[in-house]
Amino acid sequence: MKKRLVISALGKLLLLEAVMMLPALGVSLGYGDGDTVSFLISIGIMLAVSLPVIKFVKSDDQQMYMREGLAVAGLGWVLLSAFGALPMTVYGACDYVSAFFEITSGFTTTGATVFTEIEALPHGILFWRSFTHWIGGMGVLVFTTALLPTIGGRGGYLARAESPGPSFSKLAPKLGDSAKILYLIYTILTVLQAIALLIAGMPLFDAFIHAFGTAGTGGFSNRNLSIAAYDSVAIDIIISVFMLLFGLNFALFFKLITRDFKGIIKNEEARVYVGLAVISILLIAVDLIKVYGDFPTALRYSMFQVPTVMSTTGFATADFNLWPTFSKSLMLILMLFGSCAGSTAGGLKIVRVIMLFKLASREIRHAFQPRKVHVIKMEGKSLPEDSLSQVGVFFFTYIVILIFGALAVSLDGRDVVTSFTASLACLSNIGPGLGDVGPMGNFTDFSAPVKMVLSFIMLAGRLEIFPILILFHPAAWKRS
Amino acid sequence: MKKRLVISALGKLLLLEAVMMLPALGVSLGYGDGDTVSFLISIGIMLAVSLPVIKFVKSDDQQMYMREGLAVAGLGWVLLSAFGALPMTVYGACDYVSAFFEITSGFTTTGATVFTEIEALPHGILFWRSFTHWIGGMGVLVFTTALLPTIGGRGGYLARAESPGPSFSKLAPKLGDSAKILYLIYTILTVLQAIALLIAGMPLFDAFIHAFGTAGTGGFSNRNLSIAAYDSVAIDIIISVFMLLFGLNFALFFKLITRDFKGIIKNEEARVYVGLAVISILLIAVDLIKVYGDFPTALRYSMFQVPTVMSTTGFATADFNLWPTFSKSLMLILMLFGSCAGSTAGGLKIVRVIMLFKLASREIRHAFQPRKVHVIKMEGKSLPEDSLSQVGVFFFTYIVILIFGALAVSLDGRDVVTSFTASLACLSNIGPGLGDVGPMGNFTDFSAPVKMVLSFIMLAGRLEIFPILILFHPAAWKRS
Repeated sequence: MKKRLVISALGKLLLLEAVMMLPALGVSLGYGDGDTVSFLISIGIMLAVSLPVIKFVKSDDQQMYMREGLAVAGLGWVLLSAFGALPMTVYGACDYVSAFFEITSGFTTTGATVFTEIEALPHGILFWRSFTHWIGGMGVLVFTTALLPTIGGRGGYLARAESPGPSFSKLAPKLGDSAKILYLIYTILTVLQAIALLIAGMPLFDAFIHAFGTAGTGGFSNRNLSIAAYDSVAIDIIISVFMLLFGLNFALFFKLITRDFKGIIKNEEARVYVGLAVISILLIAVDLIKVYGDFPTALRYSMFQVPTVMSTTGFATADFNLWPTFSKSLMLILMLFGSCAGSTAGGLKIVRVIMLFKLASREIRHAFQPRKVHVIKMEGKSLPEDSLSQVGVFFFTYIVILIFGALAVSLDGRDVVTSFTASLACLSNIGPGLGDVGPMGNFTDFSAPVKMVLSFIMLAGRLEIFPILILFHPAAWKRS
Repeated sequence: MKKRLVISALGKLLLLEAVMMLPALGVSLGYGDGDTVSFLISIGIMLAVSLPVIKFVKSDDQQMYMREGLAVAGLGWVLLSAFGALPMTVYGACDYVSAFFEITSGFTTTGATVFTEIEALPHGILFWRSFTHWIGGMGVLVFTTALLPTIGGRGGYLARAESPGPSFSKLAPKLGDSAKILYLIYTILTVLQAIALLIAGMPLFDAFIHAFGTAGTGGFSNRNLSIAAYDSVAIDIIISVFMLLFGLNFALFFKLITRDFKGIIKNEEARVYVGLAVISILLIAVDLIKVYGDFPTALRYSMFQVPTVMSTTGFATADFNLWPTFSKSLMLILMLFGSCAGSTAGGLKIVRVIMLFKLASREIRHAFQPRKVHVIKMEGKSLPEDSLSQVGVFFFTYIVILIFGALAVSLDGRDVVTSFTASLACLSNIGPGLGDVGPMGNFTDFSAPVKMVLSFIMLAGRLEIFPILILFHPAAWKRS
């Protein structure tokens, strides 16, 4: 491991975070809620740490390989959360561990919160909290690759370590250009959504908060009741549609711009994703008739709640914790599966689920034609065997983290449903689960160790496990 | 698919089942509880169906391949359950679907029951119910391979389709000899346990019932309170030790006979299995101090309940449904993992879990040394890549069946914990789960369709999924 190279990159990342805190500082100055000083102190600390590191830790060897990429990703995200938690703690909104949990939840676009009285928080803090969703959604390192190639390095290992899904899709020949295109699409969609929400009657501040939360598929709201606070069908529909959009592979938007409509329709993952959404919305709507009395009302809530868990956003218009078991169980399955690779969403990713189903089906076909070589195809192209074997391992590791997370949470003495769904909601970066951590619950009452474990589970989920796991591997700390 | 060959084998299997019902007929005659006629009618029906099939359906081609093996296994087990359910229904103990569920639960060594008043059942029925555990544990087809090579056929596909674990271990050069050795060890251990239980003060009938239930790792008892009814530490310990023994790979007992002690100690799966049992017993015992007041009492219950779920037996001395969440969650993980391959137990099998952990660890090592080929070894031998990739697929398919089973159960309007653990308890062939299906609960109140779904899940678990899955595949029914 090239330690100096990694430390130098981390120093630059921290400086970048200080810069990213400036909009929140601006908001806090504008509203004058008394949180300005806490931002100034936090930015001061970040500069005091990052500037000397950047000045004194230099590395002659600028070539990053996969393990440096994974280490910068893993440590970088921990660092961003650790320093990003400062404003809340300095302001006195909560203790440091809770703030670390909250900001990790922000950057990882989980949206699990420790606050019971969100509306009591000052605007600067609220803005920073939701802005971390927006930054974390597309990826800090992808951003870095786009604007600061000296940190991102060649080879794209950094951006790849952070990108959701089995492969990082290059849209342009140069990696930096791909990242710029992604961020441009991302920004345009976010602004479009904010405008739509404004037109639907949402206040300006709220519109940006919820656009950030949707774009990053995060789920932090500035209202205690989340989207239910507005009780507006128009707002429900706007957010619902944008949640589904942000759950799509961003390469599709690029194809839209380049008028490659065939490529969009042919995309197998997107078709399964949309199909699964439609079927789940309908099944749950039918199941909910017994709760809401009629199909249109049931459809209104299922049309919002299915996209919110599939896209792993976690906004709420209804307390699905009170829904019938069938709907809850289906929601849990959707939480596990998540959205498309190359989106801002979490979960296993639909493409992996498709690959696993194809592998299972191959086992059956193999029984009938044991001598035939069965190649697995995706959109006409055959998939290499090693990526297929990796997807099985990924799935297993995902489930192991899920159950050991649940075991850790269970030490706090919660019930089985709360323990398992808290772990799932963090790992799949959703936010709400069932039981005590349902859409109208929160993570306040967990002990500090459990909050730390859940923070690491959120990071493991966001970085697709291995960048975080290698931090705990002794080989990562050996000299190369 | 060679249909005539398959049908002919199924006819012989049914005849065999009629023969296997004779001991139960004897018991019913001996006790005279009024269930004799129902056995006579059932045996009559089985003869009336099987004899004409055997006489008229002949196949010139005796060579069974993998798909015929899988089909006979899948259909054979369904058939055995379908006809094995007759005595209970004819006697009037319950409706046919419930009887089908009960006997499937018997053959698959699940031990999930639909009876609330077990002690009210006649002795013949009780004997048959538990005898199916004993038959199903080692496998009907393994038995067939041993005694009736004309059904088992060459190539061993039949025995392999039924054997738990990734590979069927041959103990002797000839497959039939291996099967005979297995059945001999199995019988001796069963008799030893029955004698031990007798000495500990259990009545003769009960001793055999519980020896059958332990040997097959089934879990049916003839007492409403299961093993708790005896409230004897000696009985607890005997059953606990034998449950752990029957969860071991039977090849180990063969090694014991041939004095290959090195081979026993070297066995990686057995070491992990025992280690996991000891650690889990201690962790749960510590967690249970707050329930039972002192460590010795807590240890007594954890020392029984951990082996009962690890070996997927499902006997009860305590209602673990009332235990703290940490203990319950750990029990759920053990239920998922199960015991050793080549044992009579269910679950994923420890060897698969070890392989999956090694695969995950390889992914991490791969990040550090991307160009090195990392071979995965088990007991010094490197494992072939295709068996490694299969184990990931198996795990995924297992989890998919688990969650879709839960979804099916949830339609009966139970809570989330009941739905998921009912599915897990059936898939891993344990019997009790949590919630309504906890150790002191039962499966009576489920609807008929849910009972059928759970029956198929039990079969899928017992036959390790693929022999049952292929029955639903259109290619299985095409002409070859």
